[in-house]
Amino acid sequence: MEDRKQYDIVMLKEGEEKKVKDIVIVEYSLKLFLNGKEFVTLLCTPKSLKSLVVGFLYSEGIIKAKNDIKNIKIDKEKGNAYVDISNKDAFSYVGEYLLAKKTITTACAKVKTVLYNEIEFGDEEESPIFIDPQKILLLSNELSKKSELFMKTGGVHSCALCNQEKIILFEDDIGRHNALDKVLGKALLEEIKLEDKVVFTTGRISSEILMKVAKRKISTLVSRAAPTNVAIDMARKLNITLIGFARGQRMNIYTQ
Amino acid sequence: MEDRKQYDIVMLKEGEEKKVKDIVIVEYSLKLFLNGKEFVTLLCTPKSLKSLVVGFLYSEGIIKAKNDIKNIKIDKEKGNAYVDISNKDAFSYVGEYLLAKKTITTACAKVKTVLYNEIEFGDEEESPIFIDPQKILLLSNELSKKSELFMKTGGVHSCALCNQEKIILFEDDIGRHNALDKVLGKALLEEIKLEDKVVFTTGRISSEILMKVAKRKISTLVSRAAPTNVAIDMARKLNITLIGFARGQRMNIYTQ
Repeated sequence: MEDRKQYDIVMLKEGEEKKVKDIVIVEYSLKLFLNGKEFVTLLCTPKSLKSLVVGFLYSEGIIKAKNDIKNIKIDKEKGNAYVDISNKDAFSYVGEYLLAKKTITTACAKVKTVLYNEIEFGDEEESPIFIDPQKILLLSNELSKKSELFMKTGGVHSCALCNQEKIILFEDDIGRHNALDKVLGKALLEEIKLEDKVVFTTGRISSEILMKVAKRKISTLVSRAAPTNVAIDMARKLNITLIGFARGQRMNIYTQ
Repeated sequence: MEDRKQYDIVMLKEGEEKKVKDIVIVEYSLKLFLNGKEFVTLLCTPKSLKSLVVGFLYSEGIIKAKNDIKNIKIDKEKGNAYVDISNKDAFSYVGEYLLAKKTITTACAKVKTVLYNEIEFGDEEESPIFIDPQKILLLSNELSKKSELFMKTGGVHSCALCNQEKIILFEDDIGRHNALDKVLGKALLEEIKLEDKVVFTTGRISSEILMKVAKRKISTLVSRAAPTNVAIDMARKLNITLIGFARGQRMNIYTQ
């Protein structure tokens, strides 16, 4: 299982387009079975998976010590981790945990499969909205300076909805998912048509971020940071233009 | 409800300590009640809360259109959002959603209250482990260069466990929570004592990250990025040394 994958992309640098190979981080799903029962799915980097599983169970209070673990088996190909734990107390906590795990943190827990299944495939054949690459860089650089809260605290992500000319909606939040949800929520409340708009974010593009944008039929997603391989694959399938590392005078176009 | 808060901190810059006022991002809990029933708690920035709630429900597929919302009331002081929705279909999906929401994404969903209650207060009175500030900067700068995967992809966070001299364990992952869980899991498997160690991370310090470290009785947590106000308050209460923005020749000490 590789932790990175190579993609053919177009890099735009100081006005010049160049076809290059780009190395992209792999987003991996690990389904955790606890004493034979499906428990959670962790989205992660496929390295040190045993440590991840143990650390996760330890942090969550499911195990209290090393010898609470009777057995661990990681099936990397299937994306499954099988853990047997001995402490019955901890295991009775699991049901409680699932009920209690209703706190959505600074980057939310999302159900990828549910989101993905809701996308309508097939009628997305028209070309994505065209937006001038130089305009993208201008807007992305504008986004990076727009958050007064970021300037003061360094602790938020920003997200903007733009037309081909300017920023229409702007939000910031400690969570990159929240910032995007705020923009999409405001657009719904204000009845702003989304199909011809572009979303800009300062955050990384994982599958969940891509899916939120895809569900709203937004054709172009621009980030100042990196995408994962799953986000790129989804964007290509759904005919969404995905741009990453849009900073200064360069950007990577992952879908061309 | 302020979105930022001022703290008295010590800034170390090019070897000189200075007491300064620092503006810190506020971490806010918003409990969402759906048709009178508690649904989820969102950790967020207390701005545009109505847009956040609407966008979240829309992204999650709980509402399909603006007029699915009959009523929204935000009680900012209590940290509650009350939403009445009309579409029965969507509401029946809520139970399913809670069961299905077992995918822990690139930053995990954690139950802050559960974690917090597990911390033992009172016996943490001894002084945190001393580590030379110049050593902290050296290790933090080493951390930033250590991830070959970050150098190639720009898509991961790094985390390290250090003694007063060097990095002992190092992990990277698309999620900052995962990177920390990997380090803590490996430490458990290898039976490494944690009380006298320091954790370094490239990610922001929210309450969940602070709690993971506190549960392991680690006395010092260093980040290259920003902490939230809740993380600072918890660190001060638990007598954990919390350092942020440890980059180049400067760092902020939030607990002195």
